[in-house]
Amino acid sequence: MTDHDVAGLQRRLAEFAAARDWEQYHTPKNLAAALSVEAAELVEIFQWLTPEQSARIMDEPESAHRVTDEVADVLAYLLQFCSRLGIDPLTALAAKIDRNEHRFPAP
Amino acid sequence: MTDHDVAGLQRRLAEFAAARDWEQYHTPKNLAAALSVEAAELVEIFQWLTPEQSARIMDEPESAHRVTDEVADVLAYLLQFCSRLGIDPLTALAAKIDRNEHRFPAP
Amino acid sequence: MTDHDVAGLQRRLAEFAAARDWEQYHTPKNLAAALSVEAAELVEIFQWLTPEQSARIMDEPESAHRVTDEVADVLAYLLQFCSRLGIDPLTALAAKIDRNEHRFPAP
Amino acid sequence: MTDHDVAGLQRRLAEFAAARDWEQYHTPKNLAAALSVEAAELVEIFQWLTPEQSARIMDEPESAHRVTDEVADVLAYLLQFCSRLGIDPLTALAAKIDRNEHRFPAP
Repeated sequence: MTDHDVAGLQRRLAEFAAARDWEQYHTPKNLAAALSVEAAELVEIFQWLTPEQSARIMDEPESAHRVTDEVADVLAYLLQFCSRLGIDPLTALAAKIDRNEHRFPAP
Repeated sequence: MTDHDVAGLQRRLAEFAAARDWEQYHTPKNLAAALSVEAAELVEIFQWLTPEQSARIMDEPESAHRVTDEVADVLAYLLQFCSRLGIDPLTALAAKIDRNEHRFPAP
Repeated sequence: MTDHDVAGLQRRLAEFAAARDWEQYHTPKNLAAALSVEAAELVEIFQWLTPEQSARIMDEPESAHRVTDEVADVLAYLLQFCSRLGIDPLTALAAKIDRNEHRFPAP
Repeated sequence: MTDHDVAGLQRRLAEFAAARDWEQYHTPKNLAAALSVEAAELVEIFQWLTPEQSARIMDEPESAHRVTDEVADVLAYLLQFCSRLGIDPLTALAAKIDRNEHRFPAP
């Protein structure tokens, strides 16, 4: 568990961007592109690894840090994208899981 | 704000995958790839739009639904990736914002 | 070998876009995004496969067709991107291989 | 036009990988992931630019070099992917343009 919440992080990200006058760059289109670039940086860490090696990625502190850092970058752009468009990401995911439970019934 | 929390969603996603015997596919490498594919599906919605059109994407119900659905998919794979590797995504992001406040001092 | 050449394909792609008045959408930024979306569609085909399954992807006609089709889409946007910016992709790659032969000397 | 051809570049790429014993990493799945990572690096160059700025990317020598270098990387992985699976990329694209001429008739 965590003592940070999504709404609080969204507020910090908004203040961070505003203080640097970066909001002008944060169109939904640009934030979606930035999100995909960060996701690709996560893929890059794993691209030549076997499935077994990929499962041990956190064993080595430098790799663990790199993975954690990319997770943060992906989440940062996802939350900024959601703030920009008024989407609640947790509600969106809860609704999607509901739909998937109907689409893919468990055996 | 939301009545759903990250840990609760991670639990639902884990149960969903376990009930369908999908855990075998969920190596960190595969989950990172799936995350990047969903991020690309978000980019696809915006790829031919002008910045101005991209800012109005939620005005049209069908586009709004599609964007919200892709946000859910990105978040679903991000949370499953984090569960698999024992990363707390909110703590990771809070730490990253702290670091960025030092790296990019506000003017 | 092939009876089609890169310059001829670039000409056909340019005529195709011009006839449909699609050039207005083909900014370098948008073509790069479209290229990355098509690359992700190629990744999607492989995302849950083991390395061994991925090596047999052409054995099944439907998968083979899907892979070939995505290769065509990736190449189409790469060539249009290059046409738009005056880059010769084959010369760019030959120069890159030259550089890599110095950066990564063979043992 | 160019004095390099696709088959010749594929041969150089194959020799380069073989000399370094890198073929073991070059599963179709991994090459598709690497291709998508390079495509994202191209997107990254453009991510915060306006459409107008993106059209002038080659005016500045350092950006021009970076773009050309990423084009080479995308093409390198695309050609290696095709070699690995026995796909002729130029024939694939010619066939796709034929199909698209039927799917999207010019006005």
